[in-house]
Amino acid sequence: MTNNPLILSNDEVSKSITVQECMDVIEELFRDVDRCQMPPKLYLDIPDGDFRAMPAVVDNTAGIKWCGVHLDKTREKRKINIFAKVLINDVETGELLAIMDGEQITAIRTAAVTGVATKYVAYPDASVAAFIGCGNQTERQIQAVMLARELSKLVLFDLDRSRCDEIAKLFEGDLEIEIADSLEDCVKEADIVTTLTPARTPFLEHAGLKDMVHINAIGADAEGKRELSQSILDNIDFVVYDNWEQCSHSGEIQYVPPDNKKQTWVSLGEVVSGKTSVDGNQTLFDATGLAVEDVLTARYIYEKIK
Amino acid sequence: MTNNPLILSNDEVSKSITVQECMDVIEELFRDVDRCQMPPKLYLDIPDGDFRAMPAVVDNTAGIKWCGVHLDKTREKRKINIFAKVLINDVETGELLAIMDGEQITAIRTAAVTGVATKYVAYPDASVAAFIGCGNQTERQIQAVMLARELSKLVLFDLDRSRCDEIAKLFEGDLEIEIADSLEDCVKEADIVTTLTPARTPFLEHAGLKDMVHINAIGADAEGKRELSQSILDNIDFVVYDNWEQCSHSGEIQYVPPDNKKQTWVSLGEVVSGKTSVDGNQTLFDATGLAVEDVLTARYIYEKIK
Repeated sequence: MTNNPLILSNDEVSKSITVQECMDVIEELFRDVDRCQMPPKLYLDIPDGDFRAMPAVVDNTAGIKWCGVHLDKTREKRKINIFAKVLINDVETGELLAIMDGEQITAIRTAAVTGVATKYVAYPDASVAAFIGCGNQTERQIQAVMLARELSKLVLFDLDRSRCDEIAKLFEGDLEIEIADSLEDCVKEADIVTTLTPARTPFLEHAGLKDMVHINAIGADAEGKRELSQSILDNIDFVVYDNWEQCSHSGEIQYVPPDNKKQTWVSLGEVVSGKTSVDGNQTLFDATGLAVEDVLTARYIYEKIK
Repeated sequence: MTNNPLILSNDEVSKSITVQECMDVIEELFRDVDRCQMPPKLYLDIPDGDFRAMPAVVDNTAGIKWCGVHLDKTREKRKINIFAKVLINDVETGELLAIMDGEQITAIRTAAVTGVATKYVAYPDASVAAFIGCGNQTERQIQAVMLARELSKLVLFDLDRSRCDEIAKLFEGDLEIEIADSLEDCVKEADIVTTLTPARTPFLEHAGLKDMVHINAIGADAEGKRELSQSILDNIDFVVYDNWEQCSHSGEIQYVPPDNKKQTWVSLGEVVSGKTSVDGNQTLFDATGLAVEDVLTARYIYEKIK
């Protein structure tokens, strides 16, 4: 291949960056997010899934994540396949710097954004964290929330209990861990609730939440995906989104016409940069995932190991 | 890298497909172009250039070209750098099939499209072909026009005459070749005129053209780029574009409000599929280059050498 770009596998990506390092990259990004050029993700539909083109230019890096989300019918359990590659170029020279497997970059940067949002939006004493959906991203999501707040307890829920067991093992000894029998049990004590499912039917109701709670809604990142019921969108005090164009199209707030919103909505950039203060006891972070998060994470890895 | 995609350099791409093979791929594509899913190219501006994300889904292939066009100020001659990679995935399995250098794919498929447009739009007896701009793409563009029509003579023009000499050498002995001293001399006998420059100021006037002529306008593929003067857009009989959304934004016809067009405009797909017949003595093909052309060309190469 021309240019000899650095080529990294998922394993190499994983070993090259910690969740804390990625949180630093993401926090720095949202402190001045207006310097990015980032059109909304382009979705191309395929039967049982989609492909997404996610380009961005930020500082001296131009890059793109090309990824597919695909229900693999050839497997017994109709597993969802996620495929992703990240390419980054230097803006100054135009040169392709690296091609990296994108699955681990996605997991790490998504967790890092949850961590940064939790750091800036959840109340300071939050100590019990619930995680709904124990898939590939959950381990790092827990790490990120643990870096943002001093947690005393994790509560896990998944329709497949064995997945909770796997995640629980990873954190054994670090703090108290409960595997919940129901969604209601999972959230009833939680100060922070993080939803990590591919749901298309809302499952989380406002009635079961604590009076003081922060929700990270991570799963919904495409048209039609939804984890939170209308009762939450109606009753929560304060909503933070990662990106207006994407969230209003693909996030939880796609289901609320802007004229009909019941609370303040602000971007994570406004909160991290200190332009807006968090106001209210029940807060929600609506994340769709930004191309620029992938691009900056890849550039950080490239600079570290080139 | 996960999945072990086929990785091909520009040299390997060049050796894997001829212009004729690519013309067959492109002709087949335009025979039923409605089966493609292809959002307009996404442009990201950088100082002195842009990056472009060009995704498409067609048949069983999802793919993207990620490319940059960049004025390299570090070189003496402020050369324009073009960088491109093409990634293709199988729609059925989601799997990444290949990552290919994209510069040669771009050159070959762009030439092939010129060839197909010439085959369907230029008049049958056209035999003198002028080429304005003798850069990296010109050799294959000439090959494509030679495959579409039985040429007796080539006329070449470039502001840098040494580039014409280089191109002329490649076709020496095949047919008569003239290196023109001026633009006017270049087009005055031409039955087919192909413009291949990065111009932003129109240079080709209607007055110097023959009464029967076909123009392939290939250079303009971004906002602000332009090769043809208003006199051509006003006086030509029949306009064929490769893609409406792209040409009306980035092609020659971006400079004509659709309400103000002076002739019939149709898509190449309509002509190739036989839905519309070419009408008039002076015809224009306005090409911006389609993601799906790159994706199908890459898939063809992959299937041939996997």
